[in-house]
Amino acid sequence: MSTTFRSCFVPTGFILGYIAYLLLGALVFSAIERPVEETLKSDLSSLKAEFLNLSCVNATALETFLEKVLQANKYGVSVLENATLPTNWDLASALFFANTMVTTVGYGHSTPLSDEGKAFSIVYALIGVPFTMLVLTACVQRLMHPLTYGPISICQRRAGLQPRTASVVHFIVLLFLVVLGFFVVPALVFSTIEETWSFLDSFYFCFISLCTIGLGDFVPAEKPGQRLRALYKISVMVYLFVGLMVMFLVLRTFHKLADVHGWTAFFQLPSYEEEDEDREPIIEQEPDDESPEAEKASVKPLDPSSQVSYNSINR
Amino acid sequence: MSTTFRSCFVPTGFILGYIAYLLLGALVFSAIERPVEETLKSDLSSLKAEFLNLSCVNATALETFLEKVLQANKYGVSVLENATLPTNWDLASALFFANTMVTTVGYGHSTPLSDEGKAFSIVYALIGVPFTMLVLTACVQRLMHPLTYGPISICQRRAGLQPRTASVVHFIVLLFLVVLGFFVVPALVFSTIEETWSFLDSFYFCFISLCTIGLGDFVPAEKPGQRLRALYKISVMVYLFVGLMVMFLVLRTFHKLADVHGWTAFFQLPSYEEEDEDREPIIEQEPDDESPEAEKASVKPLDPSSQVSYNSINR
Repeated sequence: MSTTFRSCFVPTGFILGYIAYLLLGALVFSAIERPVEETLKSDLSSLKAEFLNLSCVNATALETFLEKVLQANKYGVSVLENATLPTNWDLASALFFANTMVTTVGYGHSTPLSDEGKAFSIVYALIGVPFTMLVLTACVQRLMHPLTYGPISICQRRAGLQPRTASVVHFIVLLFLVVLGFFVVPALVFSTIEETWSFLDSFYFCFISLCTIGLGDFVPAEKPGQRLRALYKISVMVYLFVGLMVMFLVLRTFHKLADVHGWTAFFQLPSYEEEDEDREPIIEQEPDDESPEAEKASVKPLDPSSQVSYNSINR
Repeated sequence: MSTTFRSCFVPTGFILGYIAYLLLGALVFSAIERPVEETLKSDLSSLKAEFLNLSCVNATALETFLEKVLQANKYGVSVLENATLPTNWDLASALFFANTMVTTVGYGHSTPLSDEGKAFSIVYALIGVPFTMLVLTACVQRLMHPLTYGPISICQRRAGLQPRTASVVHFIVLLFLVVLGFFVVPALVFSTIEETWSFLDSFYFCFISLCTIGLGDFVPAEKPGQRLRALYKISVMVYLFVGLMVMFLVLRTFHKLADVHGWTAFFQLPSYEEEDEDREPIIEQEPDDESPEAEKASVKPLDPSSQVSYNSINR
């Protein structure tokens, strides 16, 4: 397979495969969890009716009832008449759940109820989390040139900045654009769409999500009667994915910056260009190596002429 | 500062700083959230008393009451008599919350109630998440030699394995030990301590936590009347931290393995030893560079003689 072909094919293939994997997860979660959820729902509503029929409500009866209510709520099943979405496991919701799972955000606003669901979650995340990291890495790898190397070189050539200054200026501009485009603007959008969310709530949601903390106290599209709910859920998914990619890009750019300023070396951390010990191959390459890629990788680090300076590309 | 001194000082300093940072977070969260939680708690209990005093419970009254109950529950404040822990924001709980925040696990079993708490969460995670990554990286960096390079070399020399085979055998053994020591054994412990957790529940908890998904449907030490609760919370924190470190180690070892077998090159991903484009310095090093570390880092990659083969160390 030629390098050019792979260069186009790999990210596209990864993204298509990723979408297929999410869909698969959504279908399985939906199939496993929906019947369990429905049983719990009907149990809960009959319990509520029973409770209302009591001639006199005493503390013990209320306590027992509330215990069941909170237990069900833990799994995302609400006792309220108007607050209940038809289900937590329709295709859009299941897709959203699968996505928050593999990106390790994990809001936990709805969680698998059944043992089958839990077991499937383990297997699904076991493949899905590394797969997501792979897709994100492959995409960010291709974004580094146009968004990091390119702009820094322009700063140097056009504005005549010193290399170190250029990398700092670039990082500050990148950070500003990311904060604006992935925190401030989305926060404004969320605070408009979600009636009960203040701007701080929305900003907090964006931050907690893109750090993959995902506390789950704020989850979009969980209010009943939301218009175009499925589309909204999918949009949030896309926002999360692209947002994570951008966070990853910022992190890598910062890592390069730290290398340039000698911070990684000072703290004896692996540099972006990796320290000596880490640059060594884990094992010696066999001389009769049949893989041309592996051979290429093992030869190049030892060949100083292959080390093209970043700036020389743009000269 | 000498390299040897830094080699001992950096990880120790990082870990001490990390503990101090967690303690600071716990104190602030505790100070901010405790009064808000207490107000919510007393509101809720007076609401409950009021509800019980109603001469006849109708559907509307119940609905309003339940709405408040669920709202409070979202923030970790329970309406139940026996199920309520004294507070979610005592020092051990706040420490646990701060830890799940900076490790991006984020169970969300308790979440900040106040605007100050949310704002502090953002600032705290902004510093804490990269700090945690730094500490984990610094620790894993130092574990790679004894746990990955060392054992592989022993496999090669003692068992006379081919280098590629040795790296695969090492990875399988490492994986087996990690699954046993960080999933199976802790799952057994949790299922013993937490009465309502089955083995699957506990295993699912370990997995969801160490992948940093943290759905929060299972959170240890949240049952009332648990003996030595504070100590138990701290132990879980230590388990999470060491577990994450080990997961990181497995990931890095796998990355090296993927390089050796040419998989990263095939998918055009950044190799552990980094591809050419990435090995280039982001900018050219200035000739009058005042930092000896930066200079060293920039010179060494170009000097083939500095590339000591992994195996040659052990000869």
